[in-house]
This record gives sequence, structure tokens and C-alpha cells, in this order.
Amino acid sequence: MKTYFYLLQFSILFFCLSTTIKTEASGSLPRISVEGNRFVTPDGETIIFQGVNFADPDRLVKEGQWKRDLFRVARDWGSNIVRLPVHPQAWRERGKEDYLILLDQAVEWAREFDLYIIIDWHSIGNLRTELFQHEMYKTSLPETYDFWLTISRRYADEPIVAMYEIFNEPTTYQGQLGSLTWDQWADILTDIIYVIRANSPEAIPLVGGFNWAYDLTPLMYAPLNVPGIAYVSHPYPQKRDQPWIPQWERDFGFAADDYPIIATEIGFMQPTDRGAHIPCIGDEEYGRTLMRYFRDKGISWVAWCFDPDWSPQLIKDWNYTPSRSGKFFRDVMLGKENLDE
Amino acid sequence: MKTYFYLLQFSILFFCLSTTIKTEASGSLPRISVEGNRFVTPDGETIIFQGVNFADPDRLVKEGQWKRDLFRVARDWGSNIVRLPVHPQAWRERGKEDYLILLDQAVEWAREFDLYIIIDWHSIGNLRTELFQHEMYKTSLPETYDFWLTISRRYADEPIVAMYEIFNEPTTYQGQLGSLTWDQWADILTDIIYVIRANSPEAIPLVGGFNWAYDLTPLMYAPLNVPGIAYVSHPYPQKRDQPWIPQWERDFGFAADDYPIIATEIGFMQPTDRGAHIPCIGDEEYGRTLMRYFRDKGISWVAWCFDPDWSPQLIKDWNYTPSRSGKFFRDVMLGKENLDE
Amino acid sequence: MKTYFYLLQFSILFFCLSTTIKTEASGSLPRISVEGNRFVTPDGETIIFQGVNFADPDRLVKEGQWKRDLFRVARDWGSNIVRLPVHPQAWRERGKEDYLILLDQAVEWAREFDLYIIIDWHSIGNLRTELFQHEMYKTSLPETYDFWLTISRRYADEPIVAMYEIFNEPTTYQGQLGSLTWDQWADILTDIIYVIRANSPEAIPLVGGFNWAYDLTPLMYAPLNVPGIAYVSHPYPQKRDQPWIPQWERDFGFAADDYPIIATEIGFMQPTDRGAHIPCIGDEEYGRTLMRYFRDKGISWVAWCFDPDWSPQLIKDWNYTPSRSGKFFRDVMLGKENLDE
Ligand SMILES: [Mg+2]
Ligand SMILES: [Mg+2]
Ligand SMILES: [Mg+2]
Ligand SMILES: [Mg+2]
Ligand SMILES: [Mg+2]
Repeated sequence: MKTYFYLLQFSILFFCLSTTIKTEASGSLPRISVEGNRFVTPDGETIIFQGVNFADPDRLVKEGQWKRDLFRVARDWGSNIVRLPVHPQAWRERGKEDYLILLDQAVEWAREFDLYIIIDWHSIGNLRTELFQHEMYKTSLPETYDFWLTISRRYADEPIVAMYEIFNEPTTYQGQLGSLTWDQWADILTDIIYVIRANSPEAIPLVGGFNWAYDLTPLMYAPLNVPGIAYVSHPYPQKRDQPWIPQWERDFGFAADDYPIIATEIGFMQPTDRGAHIPCIGDEEYGRTLMRYFRDKGISWVAWCFDPDWSPQLIKDWNYTPSRSGKFFRDVMLGKENLDE
Repeated sequence: MKTYFYLLQFSILFFCLSTTIKTEASGSLPRISVEGNRFVTPDGETIIFQGVNFADPDRLVKEGQWKRDLFRVARDWGSNIVRLPVHPQAWRERGKEDYLILLDQAVEWAREFDLYIIIDWHSIGNLRTELFQHEMYKTSLPETYDFWLTISRRYADEPIVAMYEIFNEPTTYQGQLGSLTWDQWADILTDIIYVIRANSPEAIPLVGGFNWAYDLTPLMYAPLNVPGIAYVSHPYPQKRDQPWIPQWERDFGFAADDYPIIATEIGFMQPTDRGAHIPCIGDEEYGRTLMRYFRDKGISWVAWCFDPDWSPQLIKDWNYTPSRSGKFFRDVMLGKENLDE
Repeated sequence: MKTYFYLLQFSILFFCLSTTIKTEASGSLPRISVEGNRFVTPDGETIIFQGVNFADPDRLVKEGQWKRDLFRVARDWGSNIVRLPVHPQAWRERGKEDYLILLDQAVEWAREFDLYIIIDWHSIGNLRTELFQHEMYKTSLPETYDFWLTISRRYADEPIVAMYEIFNEPTTYQGQLGSLTWDQWADILTDIIYVIRANSPEAIPLVGGFNWAYDLTPLMYAPLNVPGIAYVSHPYPQKRDQPWIPQWERDFGFAADDYPIIATEIGFMQPTDRGAHIPCIGDEEYGRTLMRYFRDKGISWVAWCFDPDWSPQLIKDWNYTPSRSGKFFRDVMLGKENLDE
């Protein structure tokens, strides 16, 4: 048992360090929870999220751009939430303790500008077979459990970290990354949510479906048997040909009748833009159609990406000059875009 | 097939090295087996085990305390068994071959003082999710299989290594380490016992239940479908409030009607002692109640811990001066403690 | 999504590099496929394979023997196929990219001498428990998935790489490597074939059974539910006592009525030969009996091993001087051995 004793000492020490590193919760932002198909504040008021994705904090440190200004400008654009994509490779290479320092810092800057945070385990591929779309997305089920154990313990009492996005984009890449049934994926997600809930009962787990987190059709017959979660879609312009709305409705939008939905990645760019790629080619027509659809359905959203290199880019440079899509989403958030004209 | 051939050569070489490193079995201690709810000698006589836990041999080497004297004093106190807790981290860091040298040495010292040995894979946590209570307990299912393959091959013909304790303390930590059903745990244990039995048909696998190896209630409806094993409980004083006996009976003692039970960790200490921690605070009242209960039920036991640092400590220093609990358990083993007064 | 973009760039770059490294398919050898219980060419003609195993290309490089001459002599002996056993340890230690360079080179030499290639993931043991017969065979299910993803993407358009042997020799070693049911093994194989097929729809996966890829009896009641595959047996002389044929028929030969069968390892040696070991001791009586049986059943085969050290050896030295078994199999391939006399 003596080893057990040291653990307790360690836990207490760790707890003290945690609370030292974290500043006191200001209470400036209330805890968000799920009620029916809505995100709600403690007084039951509906909140719709809109905001931007940052690049991986580890990358931003390396670029010298991990700054309070990111959060300030995100707020100036009208965001009420930001999403932090944590790449498994960056998590391992920086090391857990060092990476947590970045996330702790994010919480403080977010607090200053009244922004909520989504922490996103930014992998792409098949977590069952451990085949991924690129080396930087490589992880395993035990590492994913451990990531969420660590995150959910760290931010259990921090309402600003409102949502945990369990796994960015599940895909088998047309089977090339091995098979994964919805039942298998639902079991994996349920196991991870169990860990999260035991350590952080109040935060909201976010669940994405197949086809790179686009497709939520399995919710028609087999939603997760877990209350209090929200679902994700990433409806980039070329996921479907026009007309979009009937297809969005069939593919993910129908689920907004029963669950809170948040599109944690959307965006568009021109074919001639730097980094242009399928499925992101589109323009303001896509943007307006999507924004009207989301408004009508009560769907929250987070645009990709507040970074001059990660496409589709919302900014052109580190002066935060908006790109064409950046201007569009900023104007929507600020109410300057007339979606109905 | 040529690679296969080299394997055979290697195996033979390995076998020779093994038998060279090991001294011949003296036959001084007979093989123990399971008969009904008893540990028995070859002539069918019941044997009740009593003894002490040492610290991890790897730690003792580092402290300069890995000595024949440990075994001598354990015997002087009346022990007929000692338990060696092998931490997964120590196993990896020392390396398999070097660690086995320590265990081989333990066998020789145990032989000299007529002590049986329990080898204990000293992890704490959830082996299914690979979430553990501390870094030193971190392992995986394949590493655990490999540990038991290695141990069971090494000591198959050595009756002194009487018992293999598969996994020290299974716990989900109130779900924080992920979910683990009894059926899942039983499947894992059955798979490991299968490996052990194929390599070492005669040694006795020891199986612990949830709540840090305290709880054996699932045996009421779903015992492992494996003959010849024994079950473990770790009934530290604060696992239950007084009165203890009806709760011990309900939680693990009832199983002694059908299976051999060995409490591989017990102990107590004062709240003011160094390293005091829940669930170990208690005194001789606990000790006497437990010892009477074990005597009446035929339950074997091993006290924690014959080490001046690992609490609850049985010794105060490396002169092996008994602590208060050390004095108590020593006197019980030597028949000097009147349990019924 | 920006990270996704980089992936696409990377994929395109990788594709370009791949096609640069690979020379154009000459079309000299047509694509082989499975039709009923036969291997067939595009015009539906049956092809029976006969050939030799090389040692692991990584080993041959280290020995200074990775040469075009290997392929030339294999062809001179009458081979139409060669098998390349890739040991997981060699794959990891050389590194994926460097190992692929060796395999690319093999394809070019094979093309020059009209030889097909089997790539063989040369592990021995239990892939479910990750217990193997020796360190060099150590792998995991995710590593095995990744190996086949890599290989099947690399050689999808290369008919010369006709077959992928998923796992050389599955065995539990009489349970010492843990349990593995046929259903569990079939599920693992089906998962791997799914990855292979998604990346390389036309190559033929090869499936081996238990008892070191000797036993195909489960095909009587539970063949894999996957079309277009072939099955493997390794009927070394001592797998069964004489008379061999009724036992071969019962153990694997019966399956040749329904599936293409290829014996990817056969061979014999004298008890006094260097490296002699069970189950390989035998002589030309075994050889002739087996060759007649294979001829009558339409079973393809690949002899072990075109190497002076890996036993049973087909050559005595690096001048490719045939050993006794080498002379036998060479003469069979060249039609110089009268099997019916
Ligand atoms: Mg303990
Ligand atoms: Mg998919
Ligand atoms: Mg072999
Ligand atoms: Mg528990
Ligand atoms: Mg077998």
C-alpha cells in the first residue's frame, strides 16, 4: 500500500499545482449544459455558439504567434467560442505537462475576452485499426483515453472549457484505413465519454460521425445511449453538390430536432487560393446558404481557420487581416451581413 | 524455417542458462495445490499461509537492502510465505533478464529459509483501458501476457514459487479510469491464466476483484470458469466501518466456503504515523478481529509491508525493528498473541 | 482542414515519388487472379506456381548477397515465383521507406526474369495476444495493419507482386502463446484483407491456418467469408508420420477442391545437416510423395530456403551450389525428376 500512499501525495500535490497554475474561475462565463436540442446557460436560456478555430497551440508557439491578441481579435470579430485542435503528435512531442501549460494559458486569455473553448483531439482516421490519414494524426485508443482523462481532470471545474471534441474526423478513407462500423465507433465513443464523465461530469462531449465528421445519418437508428452530449458536422462546400439544403438536412441537419448540433469546422476558399483543396472550394453563396440554414435550425458553428497558412484561411497575415471568407464570417458574427437579401 | 531453427537453438540455450542460473530444486518445500477451498501439500494436508510483503526487489537493490537477511528475519517472525510486488515500471526499466536474476536470487534465499513465494504483478488500475493510478503501474495487456509467459516458463518446475498474483489491484477509481465489467475482467483473467497454465501447469494463479482487490462479491454469480485457482482480498481497516465481520463475510469471506482465499495485503497504522493514508488507519482491534476471522475461516494472509518506508510499515528501520503493527503480526505468527483474550 | 490539405499535398508527392521509384509496369507478366480453386491468367488459363523462398531481403543486404543473381538463378532453376519473408523486426529496424526500396528493387529483378513475388509478413505466433515465438517475430495488430496498408498501396498496380501472405505461421505453441480460436483468427484476417482490398483490389491475399500454417481443417466448417483469396499450408516432412497422403488430404489437401492452395514453405534435410531441426528431417521419398500429391491436386509450392544458412537450405554456398534438397526441387522444376518411377 505504500506505493498507493505516494500516489495520494502525488495527487494532492498535482491538485495544488493545478489550482496554482489555473487562476480562480472568475465566474464571468457560466457553465453551459445540454437541454433537449439546445445549449443552455444555467438560467435555461439558449446559447448559439459562433466562433473560429485557431491552429494547434503547439504550432502557434513555434511560429511565435501564441498570443493574447488571438483571443482579443477573435472576440472583436464577434466570436463567443474558439476551438483548439490538439494534434496527437504535438501532444506527445511537447509532452503532457508542457502542453497543459498552453491550454491553461488559453483558458486565461479566453476568460479575459469572454470566450468559451472547445478542446479538440485533432486526429483523422480509424481509431479502431490505428490507421490514420497522416503521421501527425497517429494515436491509439489508450492514448486517447489518457488524453481525455488528463483533460477532463484538469478542466472539470472550468466552465470556460465548455466542450470536449472527442475525435476530430473519423474516417475509413473508403475502407483504406480498415473497417469501422457505427456500432464499433459508438462503443469507442461511449467508453471515452465514460472516462470524461467520471472526471468532469459537467463538460459537454462532442461526437462526430463518419465521412470526416460530416455524416450523422446513423443517429436516425442508433444514437449513442448517453445523455447530455452534442453532435458535430463539418459541412464544407464540396461535401455535396447543390442544392445543398435538402442534403444537409438528410445528412446531419435532421438531428438538430433532437440534439444540439455544432459545426466545428466550416469554411470556403477560391480554387486559386493558396492551399486550395477538395472539399473546401466555394464562395459566399455557400456561406450565405449555410448561415441561413444554421440560423433556421439553431445550429452552432466554428469557422476554419484563424491562421494565414492553414486553409481555408480566415486571415491573410499575422496582423489578422481578414481573407475573403474571414470577412464573410466576421460580418455574419457582427450582424453586418444581410443573409436574406 | 531457418529462423524457426534458430529459435529452437535459442530456446535450448535459454533453457540451459535458466537451469544453470537456478540451483537445483532442493525438494525442501513440496508443491502446493488447490483442493476444494484449501491449499494442500502433496499428502493432502491443509496449509494456511502467513507472511509478509517485501518492497519491490528492484527498489531494495537500489536501497542496498536486497539481502538474504530479509528472508531470514521474515522466517524468524514466523512467516511461511513472502510476497514480491513487481512494478511494471521497474520490470521495464531494469529489463526482463536483469529482473529475473533478482527473482532467481529470491528463490534461493527462500529455499534456505523454507519460505514460499508469491510473485505479484503490482499494477493498480484498469487493464482494459490502460488507465492506471500512477505512472509506475502503467502496463498493457500484451506486456502483462508477456510478463506471465516469462515468469511461468521460468518457475514452472519450482514449487517455492507457489503462486502467481495476476494483477495486484484492479480498480476503475470510481470510473475515472474507464469502465470495466466483471465479465470483461473475468475474460482478461481467463486469457492470462490460459498462458500461465500452458507454461506452468502446477502453480496457483491468484485472482483479485474490484475496489482495489477488496471485493469478491461477483463470485456469488459469476466465478471464473477455471479450476485450481485461489482468490485474493485486501481488507485494510477502513474498507468498511465497524462492525467489520458481517461486511467482510458479505464482501469476500463467503467465498472461503468454495475457494482458497488469501489476503495478500493487510495492515494498519496510526493516523500520526509517517505515510498514514486511507484506507489503512487502524489498530490492534482491527488486527485481532481480522486474525480471529481469518483463523475461523481458514483464510491465509500476507501483511504489508516489511519495509521502513512503504506504509503501513512492519519495520521501523533496516535493523528490522518491528513497528507496532509489525510487532502485532509477528506475535500472531509466532503464536504469542492471544487473539481470544 | 489545413492539416488535411497538407496531407493531400503529401499524398500527391508520395504518389509521385512512388511512381518515380517504381519503373513502369512492363506488362511482361500478366495479373493473376483466383477463379474457383485455381490461379488463373487474364485469359483464364490455369497457372501452377513453383519456386523458392529467399531469406529476408534485409538480411541479404547485410550479408552482401542482395543481388540480381538471386533472381537469375531462381529462374534458371525453373521458378516462376519467389517468396520474400519480411520479418517485423527487420521492417522496423531498417525503417519503412528503406525497406520499400529493397522491395522495389526485388520487383525490378523479378520483372527481368519473369518471376512473380509473394510478400510474406514473416511472423510466428499469436497476433491476438502479441506473444510470439521469438523477438524477431514480435509485432502487433496495428503494425500489421500498417504493414499491409503500406504494401498494398505501394504495389496495387504491380501484377508481379501477385500475392500478399498475411501472416507466415499462426501458432499458439500448444497454448503457451495464449489462446486463439479460429473465429478470432478469421476475424483478424478478414479485417486485414479489408485493408488490403481497399488499397489493392486485385492482389491475392494468402491465408494460413494454425499449427505453424499447416492445418486448414477449419475450412470444412468455417472458411473465411471473403472471395478471391488462396490458402496456405507448410507441410514439412515431420508434421505427420507416414503414410503422409491420407493425412495431408485430411489436414489441408481437401481444401484444394474449393480454393487455390499454395504451400509457401516445404523442404527437407538430413539429421546430420547443419541447422537440422524438427519438423524438417526427411529425404527424397518425402519430396517425391509430396510433389506427386501436389501435381495430382494442382497445388502450387515454394521451397524453403534459397540460402546457405537458413535451413533446410536449398543452396550450399553463395555460388548457389544446390544442396541435396536444392538439387531435388530444382530438378522437379526443370522436369528432370521422374516422380513416377
Ligand atoms: Mg498496494
Ligand atoms: Mg468514413
Ligand atoms: Mg518459417
Ligand atoms: Mg473498481
Ligand atoms: Mg496453434
